[in-house]
Amino acid sequence: MRAAVGIDFGGTNVQAVVVDEAGRVLADGVWPTPREGPAVADLVAGIVASLDVEGLPLGIGAPVLLDGDGIVVAAPNLPSVIGTDFGRSVRSRLTEMNRNPAALVVDNDATLAAVGELELGCAAGSRDAVVVTLGTGIGAGLIVNGQVIRGANGFAGEAGHMVVDTAGPPCPCGRNGCWERFASGTGLARLARDAAHAGRATRVVELAGGDPEAVRGEQVSLACAEGDPEARAIMSAFGWWVALGLANLCLLLDVELCVIGGGLVGSGDFLLAPVREHFAEFMEPATGGTGRVVPRPVAQIVLASLGSRAGAVGAAWSAWKAVGGR
Amino acid sequence: MRAAVGIDFGGTNVQAVVVDEAGRVLADGVWPTPREGPAVADLVAGIVASLDVEGLPLGIGAPVLLDGDGIVVAAPNLPSVIGTDFGRSVRSRLTEMNRNPAALVVDNDATLAAVGELELGCAAGSRDAVVVTLGTGIGAGLIVNGQVIRGANGFAGEAGHMVVDTAGPPCPCGRNGCWERFASGTGLARLARDAAHAGRATRVVELAGGDPEAVRGEQVSLACAEGDPEARAIMSAFGWWVALGLANLCLLLDVELCVIGGGLVGSGDFLLAPVREHFAEFMEPATGGTGRVVPRPVAQIVLASLGSRAGAVGAAWSAWKAVGGR
Repeated sequence: MRAAVGIDFGGTNVQAVVVDEAGRVLADGVWPTPREGPAVADLVAGIVASLDVEGLPLGIGAPVLLDGDGIVVAAPNLPSVIGTDFGRSVRSRLTEMNRNPAALVVDNDATLAAVGELELGCAAGSRDAVVVTLGTGIGAGLIVNGQVIRGANGFAGEAGHMVVDTAGPPCPCGRNGCWERFASGTGLARLARDAAHAGRATRVVELAGGDPEAVRGEQVSLACAEGDPEARAIMSAFGWWVALGLANLCLLLDVELCVIGGGLVGSGDFLLAPVREHFAEFMEPATGGTGRVVPRPVAQIVLASLGSRAGAVGAAWSAWKAVGGR
Repeated sequence: MRAAVGIDFGGTNVQAVVVDEAGRVLADGVWPTPREGPAVADLVAGIVASLDVEGLPLGIGAPVLLDGDGIVVAAPNLPSVIGTDFGRSVRSRLTEMNRNPAALVVDNDATLAAVGELELGCAAGSRDAVVVTLGTGIGAGLIVNGQVIRGANGFAGEAGHMVVDTAGPPCPCGRNGCWERFASGTGLARLARDAAHAGRATRVVELAGGDPEAVRGEQVSLACAEGDPEARAIMSAFGWWVALGLANLCLLLDVELCVIGGGLVGSGDFLLAPVREHFAEFMEPATGGTGRVVPRPVAQIVLASLGSRAGAVGAAWSAWKAVGGR
């Protein structure tokens, strides 16, 4: 079988895919992310075994920054692996089980999501684009002149840790008011719980079993789909924060396309519509009192065509590349 | 004479240089920025006449975004030219005076400052860098893979309008809490006036002639040089805002070098020291409770080696390129 395996470690879930050379997903699965570092390699080995894909090229994405030696130097949403050699521990576990891959590639999850959307998804053919992955945190892959850029140390794209509100809540990264405190799945859940405690999320709380503290983003999406106006107000407030950060990225990089990926893609138009509306407000041209308005081109905003599997597909694509495929 | 002219319109001053092919500045001058659009072309013509440089290639930088037809689509700090064809009005004024340049290039000022520092200044040889120009507003030029990037429409680098504090003051661009509300010359003056009104800027107010409302950034620099602790406290608070935005840029682009240009370069180490100190705090690795700290490489921060003339020198360099020089 000419195929590759991609595994994407999120802060909450692990997504795995087997993809053939035409970009078709042949098999996939989702597992909860292990809390402890050593369990990460065990899970990879278990996935390889359960998908029966030993010997194929294997790509792994994770919410980490790796230095030139493969050591994890930062991982705000997966702290258990800080300081470890992610690739080496996976490789030695696979070797123990006699399940060596044809190649093993480890990279930042958001970078791989951008690779996936650029090579096999909705950013194909784009020259300047950003792919933001809204999950437990926010990662971004930046496409400049048709290529995913890496930066001086391979750390480019840490958009989730742009400070957008200096008075905002503390972030595990050590700063305050990072974009991902507001515009990630974690941020949506916090907005929803705030609304629940203020009595502005009756249906959402019902769907969460009656406990405001149990409210998650999923219940906001569900209530939106039922037409619940309180849930839609929460999603609009959330969309404002997503749009704010996208506007920052667009002002900086002047992209033609913003792709939204990650678990929240499942909210579909309930998410996309308020994001687009608020983004248009942020990008409205100012006249500076002159009364003259010159329309300027602004970026299109779309949902990842690979959905929440963009990172895993990008990981598989990178593994192909490592063995000279695609 | 094998030389080129560069003119850089800031929100406050206009800087002009004549530069030879070795990058040496042969002549220069500074004029106040005209408030009215039509006076812009008159000033260019006057500069060309006073420097006696008609017939040389001419590059002009301005704090504007130009569309593909050369029309100004955004200019928060020079609103009088919104909707005008900047290049055409300059060209026709020069033609009227029979002082046609060998070539005329018009571009964004911050982009040209990055071109200047990359080609003839301290970013020479850098692969990934940002050049931020702190003046009336803030502009940035982004160097990715050794090239100044332009974005899909030539608008890349609007770092001054990243929202960094959603509760911050309104910006002429229409958003609130943009980075340049805090970290530009305008931002420093505001911080200094706030300190003056709170009685925490005695010497600075003296230097401004006794009127807290007359306080500008220059007096803060002067008082710093005298060793005034209140002025140094203001500069430290200002450096925190500069560092905040630089950290945002570094997290996003993972550059090896941040170059600070613009009028504030004159403050030298009084500015640079607090910026570096706060930047190091922002970039400190988080351990996520693991206690493991892995040092990560972070960007160097330096002052523009071309000083406040980086934009004008970059404009001259671009004009050379337009006639096949350099």
